[in-house]
Amino acid sequence: MIQVFVTGGTFDKEYNYLTGELYFKDTHLKEMFDRGRCNVDIDIKTLMMVDSLEMREEDRGFIVHNCKKTLAKQILLTHGTDRMVETASVLAEAGLEDKTVVLTGAMIPYAFGTSSDGFFNLGSALAFVQVLPPGVYIVMNGRHFPWDKVRKNKQTGNFEEI
Amino acid sequence: MIQVFVTGGTFDKEYNYLTGELYFKDTHLKEMFDRGRCNVDIDIKTLMMVDSLEMREEDRGFIVHNCKKTLAKQILLTHGTDRMVETASVLAEAGLEDKTVVLTGAMIPYAFGTSSDGFFNLGSALAFVQVLPPGVYIVMNGRHFPWDKVRKNKQTGNFEEI
Amino acid sequence: MIQVFVTGGTFDKEYNYLTGELYFKDTHLKEMFDRGRCNVDIDIKTLMMVDSLEMREEDRGFIVHNCKKTLAKQILLTHGTDRMVETASVLAEAGLEDKTVVLTGAMIPYAFGTSSDGFFNLGSALAFVQVLPPGVYIVMNGRHFPWDKVRKNKQTGNFEEI
Amino acid sequence: MIQVFVTGGTFDKEYNYLTGELYFKDTHLKEMFDRGRCNVDIDIKTLMMVDSLEMREEDRGFIVHNCKKTLAKQILLTHGTDRMVETASVLAEAGLEDKTVVLTGAMIPYAFGTSSDGFFNLGSALAFVQVLPPGVYIVMNGRHFPWDKVRKNKQTGNFEEI
Repeated sequence: MIQVFVTGGTFDKEYNYLTGELYFKDTHLKEMFDRGRCNVDIDIKTLMMVDSLEMREEDRGFIVHNCKKTLAKQILLTHGTDRMVETASVLAEAGLEDKTVVLTGAMIPYAFGTSSDGFFNLGSALAFVQVLPPGVYIVMNGRHFPWDKVRKNKQTGNFEEI
Repeated sequence: MIQVFVTGGTFDKEYNYLTGELYFKDTHLKEMFDRGRCNVDIDIKTLMMVDSLEMREEDRGFIVHNCKKTLAKQILLTHGTDRMVETASVLAEAGLEDKTVVLTGAMIPYAFGTSSDGFFNLGSALAFVQVLPPGVYIVMNGRHFPWDKVRKNKQTGNFEEI
Repeated sequence: MIQVFVTGGTFDKEYNYLTGELYFKDTHLKEMFDRGRCNVDIDIKTLMMVDSLEMREEDRGFIVHNCKKTLAKQILLTHGTDRMVETASVLAEAGLEDKTVVLTGAMIPYAFGTSSDGFFNLGSALAFVQVLPPGVYIVMNGRHFPWDKVRKNKQTGNFEEI
Repeated sequence: MIQVFVTGGTFDKEYNYLTGELYFKDTHLKEMFDRGRCNVDIDIKTLMMVDSLEMREEDRGFIVHNCKKTLAKQILLTHGTDRMVETASVLAEAGLEDKTVVLTGAMIPYAFGTSSDGFFNLGSALAFVQVLPPGVYIVMNGRHFPWDKVRKNKQTGNFEEI
């Protein structure tokens, strides 16, 4: 079984037509796996729905706690891209030695239709988490990066090796 | 570099509003990788645009020829789902020993918007082709199958182990 | 109140991923009016779900019967484009003197996402039916045509004056 | 000929994936009329691209100036919904007696895919501007409202009669 943890991020944002602002309602993850006709055994659990810029130390603690507690050896975590590397490093240092943890996200909300990269990233992340050896990885832009070899380029929005 | 070969299939079909039938115009692969913000080094080449039910022996010969000729060790092939297993077996028997070949497709055309599985499958296929050992695989439903351990279930449209 | 009658047509077709053919499931009309944030008083009734090429004389009789029976003075009818003019002429000859009847449809199914003209046509048809004097009209391509001054151009798919 | 004036508003907003904010790039109006297979004679001119909350007195002056100058008797104006009634009243008081002016907009950006009301509203507005007598109107929610008989309900986002 693959454990999917939802934490929010651009991935799951929606447009509030009354205020003109982005916000979180429900996660789209189940609908996305269904649309992908996915028949891998997965369990989806929403841990929080936050913008990663607003993620606090205790939020990361809660993520670590859940990654440790789950019996699954393969964990897919959706996360805002701005602080994805930071959470990945916290997870790596928490000692989840025999588990493969993949963090992914989106630059454009899934709910924004045919411009969003989210559905592609989810497909990639689901594939990588099934075959990569234990460790913590970021999956974006069709690639996988070990947690300590990657940064987000703020000019392009892409993740790149360091 | 990853070699992407386009052969058509439901993946790339479009709706002809004059006849009400499905047909092929151009492949959507480049647009899809761009939307996925993919920065893996890929080369896309259209070999043919056919429904796999109409794929002939010489078409498969042409696919084999191109898979042998390319210098790439990683090959992603889009293909109709109805005869995907058949083409996979022809490729496996052709002797491409040091190459990883992944065939993928879609149950609903990418051009049909927010119901299509194609974008998710492409993300999965791109991920699997980067990490699986040499061999011929089918990637559908979020999973990878060795070419000789899979069939399409015609009742559900899903691929399953045999 | 505006009476909306659904008869099928390309408008409401869907893609059957098992057979690769187009078919009818449920109408999208309610979902479309909701998405359009429409708060006009409308009543939607599905009379049939057929391709207009397969519409028989008794089907047209059933449409006429319902247009006569409804108490509404404004009727919006969704219909396949190929025989829309034919049904319009049957309605015109049936004597619905004090009613405004607008037929509309789509060249690309609404379910096919961001290429479909259906949502635009529905907006136009709903507007025209509220303000045109009694009579039978076809609304396509952003225009309204009296039933006896229009034909579908089979080369372009557009409706034009005769 | 129908004159279409673009002023911005939610209608034409896009998502900036680097900042996570909404902004204006180019108008989608031409693409929308093409998708709607519209063959009415229209001329599209972008006057400005602003959020109506940021529209200043001189912006409204510029809109009035253009509505007076155009030779067209039918004018369709896209506009943010928050100050649409205000601009409509400025236009009504400017004395455009023999012209039909329709203002429309969207609650969700057209670029946000299958949730946006924009395409429906555009179809409605195009229809109403062709048949309403001279005057200034707001077209939203499938309805038309004379400029002095309408307000936006901030709780629901809908326009309603006063």
